[in-house]
Amino acid sequence: MGSFKGHALPGSFFLLAGVWWTVKHSLCFSSRRTKSLRTSSRAAQRRLEVIEGSAVLLCSVVGMLLEQFSAQGPALQLFDSSQQRWTSLMNWQHSTMYLFFSLWAAVSLVVHSSEAAPLALDRLMLAAAFFNEGFLFLYHLHGRAPLDVHLHHLLLFCVFGLALLCLLEVFQRGNLVLELLRCALTLLQGSWFWQIGFVLYSPHGQVWDQSDHNNMMFVTMCFSWHLAVAMVIVSGIYAAVTCVVRSRLRRIPPMEMGLLKPREREPESEDEVL
Amino acid sequence: MGSFKGHALPGSFFLLAGVWWTVKHSLCFSSRRTKSLRTSSRAAQRRLEVIEGSAVLLCSVVGMLLEQFSAQGPALQLFDSSQQRWTSLMNWQHSTMYLFFSLWAAVSLVVHSSEAAPLALDRLMLAAAFFNEGFLFLYHLHGRAPLDVHLHHLLLFCVFGLALLCLLEVFQRGNLVLELLRCALTLLQGSWFWQIGFVLYSPHGQVWDQSDHNNMMFVTMCFSWHLAVAMVIVSGIYAAVTCVVRSRLRRIPPMEMGLLKPREREPESEDEVL
Amino acid sequence: MGSFKGHALPGSFFLLAGVWWTVKHSLCFSSRRTKSLRTSSRAAQRRLEVIEGSAVLLCSVVGMLLEQFSAQGPALQLFDSSQQRWTSLMNWQHSTMYLFFSLWAAVSLVVHSSEAAPLALDRLMLAAAFFNEGFLFLYHLHGRAPLDVHLHHLLLFCVFGLALLCLLEVFQRGNLVLELLRCALTLLQGSWFWQIGFVLYSPHGQVWDQSDHNNMMFVTMCFSWHLAVAMVIVSGIYAAVTCVVRSRLRRIPPMEMGLLKPREREPESEDEVL
Amino acid sequence: MGSFKGHALPGSFFLLAGVWWTVKHSLCFSSRRTKSLRTSSRAAQRRLEVIEGSAVLLCSVVGMLLEQFSAQGPALQLFDSSQQRWTSLMNWQHSTMYLFFSLWAAVSLVVHSSEAAPLALDRLMLAAAFFNEGFLFLYHLHGRAPLDVHLHHLLLFCVFGLALLCLLEVFQRGNLVLELLRCALTLLQGSWFWQIGFVLYSPHGQVWDQSDHNNMMFVTMCFSWHLAVAMVIVSGIYAAVTCVVRSRLRRIPPMEMGLLKPREREPESEDEVL
Repeated sequence: MGSFKGHALPGSFFLLAGVWWTVKHSLCFSSRRTKSLRTSSRAAQRRLEVIEGSAVLLCSVVGMLLEQFSAQGPALQLFDSSQQRWTSLMNWQHSTMYLFFSLWAAVSLVVHSSEAAPLALDRLMLAAAFFNEGFLFLYHLHGRAPLDVHLHHLLLFCVFGLALLCLLEVFQRGNLVLELLRCALTLLQGSWFWQIGFVLYSPHGQVWDQSDHNNMMFVTMCFSWHLAVAMVIVSGIYAAVTCVVRSRLRRIPPMEMGLLKPREREPESEDEVL
Repeated sequence: MGSFKGHALPGSFFLLAGVWWTVKHSLCFSSRRTKSLRTSSRAAQRRLEVIEGSAVLLCSVVGMLLEQFSAQGPALQLFDSSQQRWTSLMNWQHSTMYLFFSLWAAVSLVVHSSEAAPLALDRLMLAAAFFNEGFLFLYHLHGRAPLDVHLHHLLLFCVFGLALLCLLEVFQRGNLVLELLRCALTLLQGSWFWQIGFVLYSPHGQVWDQSDHNNMMFVTMCFSWHLAVAMVIVSGIYAAVTCVVRSRLRRIPPMEMGLLKPREREPESEDEVL
Repeated sequence: MGSFKGHALPGSFFLLAGVWWTVKHSLCFSSRRTKSLRTSSRAAQRRLEVIEGSAVLLCSVVGMLLEQFSAQGPALQLFDSSQQRWTSLMNWQHSTMYLFFSLWAAVSLVVHSSEAAPLALDRLMLAAAFFNEGFLFLYHLHGRAPLDVHLHHLLLFCVFGLALLCLLEVFQRGNLVLELLRCALTLLQGSWFWQIGFVLYSPHGQVWDQSDHNNMMFVTMCFSWHLAVAMVIVSGIYAAVTCVVRSRLRRIPPMEMGLLKPREREPESEDEVL
Repeated sequence: MGSFKGHALPGSFFLLAGVWWTVKHSLCFSSRRTKSLRTSSRAAQRRLEVIEGSAVLLCSVVGMLLEQFSAQGPALQLFDSSQQRWTSLMNWQHSTMYLFFSLWAAVSLVVHSSEAAPLALDRLMLAAAFFNEGFLFLYHLHGRAPLDVHLHHLLLFCVFGLALLCLLEVFQRGNLVLELLRCALTLLQGSWFWQIGFVLYSPHGQVWDQSDHNNMMFVTMCFSWHLAVAMVIVSGIYAAVTCVVRSRLRRIPPMEMGLLKPREREPESEDEVL
C-alpha cells in the first residue's frame, strides 16, 4: 500500500516548508524590530506571502494531477461498477489532502493580494488543511501491525498539534513563539515521514519486528529526538538570520540610527503593526 | 427508526441557516467597514436578529408540536404504564433538541430587543443548543451497524465543533473568521444530514454494505469533500455580498466619500463597535 | 453503599448555592451598571463574599466532622490493621471533597478581606474543588451497574464543566455570561443529585432495570431537561433581580440621574472596575 | 526495572524546584507591587533567572552523563548487534528527559541574558520538557500491574497539567495565579514520585496488593491529599515571603513612602512591566 518514496516525498516537502517558514518568520520579526526597515519590510512580506501562495498552489495542483493520472491512478473514476468497489481510495485520499492545501494557498493569495478579507483567514485554512490531513490518516490505520499504527499515531500527534497551533494563530497572529513552534513541528513532521519510510519500507532491506514492545518504546523515544533536533535547527536558523539582519543594520549610515531611541520596546505581535 | 425524510428535513433547515448566516455576517462586516453606513447598519442588524429569532422560535415550536402530535407521536405521554415502557423516546429526544433551539431563539429575542442582558448570551445559548444536540446523538448510537455509527460520529465532529465555536464567539464576538467558519460548519451539517439519508435510507433502493472497511474510508473522505464544498460556497457568498456592497457604495454621491480617509483600518471585531 | 439521603443532602446544598450565586451575580451586575451605586456596591460585594466564605467554611468543617464521627464513620482511623484493610474509604473520600471546598472558602476569605493576594485565586481554588470532586467520582464507579455508571457519568460532565468554567473565570473575572452559566450548572448538579437519589434509591420503592438501554436513553434526555429548567430558573431570577434594582433606582431623587449620560456603555467585566 | 532511589531522586529535585519557584515568584510579585523596589527588582530577577538556568543546565548534563556511564548504563551504545536488541532503553529514555530539561535551561539562559528572542520562549521550552516527560511515561506502562499503572497515570495528570499550564503562561506571563498553581503542581509531582517509591518499592519491605480495588481508591484519594498539602505549603511560603518584604519596606525611611499614592492598583501581570 505504501512505499519508501511515498513517505520521502511529502517528508521532503514538509522539511522544505519548515526551513522556509523559519527563515521567513525570523526575517519578518527582526525587521519589524527595526524602525527604519519597517515600512519596506511590510511590503516585502506581502510579496513573500504571494510567492509562497503561488508556489504551494502550483505544487498541490500538480500533486493532485499526478495522484489521479499516474500509472495506478484512478483517472477521476471513483467507483468501479464492474467489480462493485471503490477505485484506488488511497490516491483519492491523497488528492483530497492536496485539495485542502490548495484551498489554503488560494485563500492566502486572495487575502494577501487584496484587502477584501481578514488576514487571519489564511491561518484558519492552514488549520483546516492540517486537520483534514490528520482526520484522513486517523481512519487510515484500521487493521495494521502495532508498530505501523504506533508510528502513524505519533505522526498524528504532530499533525493535530499543527492544526491546533494554526487555530491559535488566528487569534494571536504574528506571535513569534507560536510561529517558531509551528516551524519546529513542520520540520518534525517532515523528518518523521522519512523515519516512517525507513522503518516500514527500509531501502536497506532490514525488517523490523512489528509487534516487539521494545521497538515501540524506541520509536517513541526517537520521536522525542526528532523534536529536539527540529527545535535546535529552528533555533540555529533564527540565530543566523537575526545576526545577518543586525550586521546589515550596522552598515547603514548612522544618520538613521540617531532616530532610534535606545532599547525601545517594539510590539511583538504583527497585529499591532499591520 | 429513522427515515430519509427525517434526515432531509433537518438537513434542509441547517443548509438554509448556513446560507442565511453567511449573507448576514458578510453584510454586517462589509457595512461595518464603511463609516457612512455604520450607524444605520447597527439598527438594521438588530432588526435582522429580531426577525431571525422570531422565525427560529416559530419553527422550533411548530417542530415540537409536530413531533408530539403527529401520527406516531407520544402526544405528551411519557410513560406507557400498561406496557411498562417509555413512549416514543425518539420523538421526545427530537422535541428536546427543538426545545433548546427555541430557548436560544427566545434569549436572542430578549437580548437584541432590549438592553437587559449582555449580547454574548445568545451565542452561549446557541452553544448549549448544539452541545445538547450532540449529546443526545452520542447516546443514540448504541448497537447500530459500524457504518451507521461512523456516519453519525462524523456528524458529531461537526456538531461539537459548532458548539465549541459558539462558545469561542462568546469571547470573540463579531470575529469574521469565526463567523464564516460557523457558517461553513452549519452548511456541512446540513449537507451531511442529506448524505446520511442517502447512504442509510437510499431513495433509489441501493443498500450499502454496512461493515465494509472501504465504505467507511470512502465516507470519511466524502465528509472532507462536503467540508471543502461548504467552504467554497461560503467564500462565494462572501465575495458576492462584498462586491454588491462596494458597487452600491460607489453610487453614493462622492460628497460623503471625501470624509473617508483612504484605507483606514477598521476594527474587525463587533465588540469595538457595538 | 449510597442512600437517598446521601444524594439529597449535597443536592440541596448545590441547589442553594446555585440560587444564591444567581442572586449575587445579578445584583452585582445590575448595580455595577449604575454609576450612582457603584462605590457602595463594591464594598457591599466584599462583605457578601466574606459572609459566603465563612458560611461555606463552617458547613464544610461540620461536614468533615460528621463524616468522620457519625455512626459508621472511621473516626480518623485510616487503616484497620486487624483486618488488613482500609476503614470506610467512602467517608474518607467525602471528607476529602469537603476539605477542598473548605480550602476554597479559606482562600476566598483571605482574598476578599485583605489585599494580600490576587482576587482570581478564589476561582482557582473553586476550580480545584470541583476538579477534585469529579476526580474522586471518576474512580468511584468501578464495577457498578450500567445505569448507575451512566447516571454518575452525566454528573461528571456537569462537575468537570464547572471546574473548566471556574478556570476560565480566573482569566475572565466578572464576565456575567460565565457567571450565569456557572449558576445554571450548579443548579443542574444539585437537581441531578436528587435525580440520582430517586432513580437508584427510590423512596417509593420502585426499582429501575439497570441494564435496559431505553432507561439509559431516557436518563440522558432527562439530564437535558434538568439543564433546560436550570437555565430557565437562572433567567427568571436574573430578570426579577434586574427589575427590582431598576424600580429602586427610579425612586432615587432625579438629582443624581442627571449625572448619568444616557445609554453609556458600561464595562461588562468586573476587572475593569475593581 | 525501577527502584526506590530512582523515584526518590527526581522527586527530591521537583520538590526543590517547587519550593524555589514559590519563593522566586512570591518575591517578584511582592517587589513588583512596590514602586520604590521595581527597577532594582527587575535586574535582580534577571540575575536569578540566569543562576536558575545555569544550575538546571549543570544538573541535567550531569544527569545525562550518569545515566549513560553508570554501572548498568549503555555508554552511548544504542543497539547491541550481537544480541539484536536495544541497549538499556530505560537509561536512554531518562537521558532524553534530561536532554529536554537542558534545552529549556539553555533557552532560558539565552533569553534572559540577551534581548535576542521573546521572553515567552523559556515557558514554551518548559512546556515541551514536561510534555516530553509525560509522553515518554505514557508509553512506559505497557503490561504492568493495575496499581502500578494507576499510580503512574495519576503522575501523568500532574505532568500534562504542568505542560498545559506552562503553555498558558506563554500568553499570560507573570500571572501570579498561574505561577502559584505551577509551583503547587511541581511540589505535587515531587511528593508523588516519593509516594510511588514507597508504594511500589517500599523500603520497609511491605508489599501492596497490586490488583485490590480498595488500594486503587485509596491511592486516588491520597493524590488529592498530596495536592491539598502542596497548595497549603505554597500558600504558607507565599504568606511568609510577602510578610518579610512588607516588614522590610516599613524600615525604609518614610521619605520614599510619600511618593506612593495610597492603594494604587499595580499591574498584576509581568508583561505590563517588563
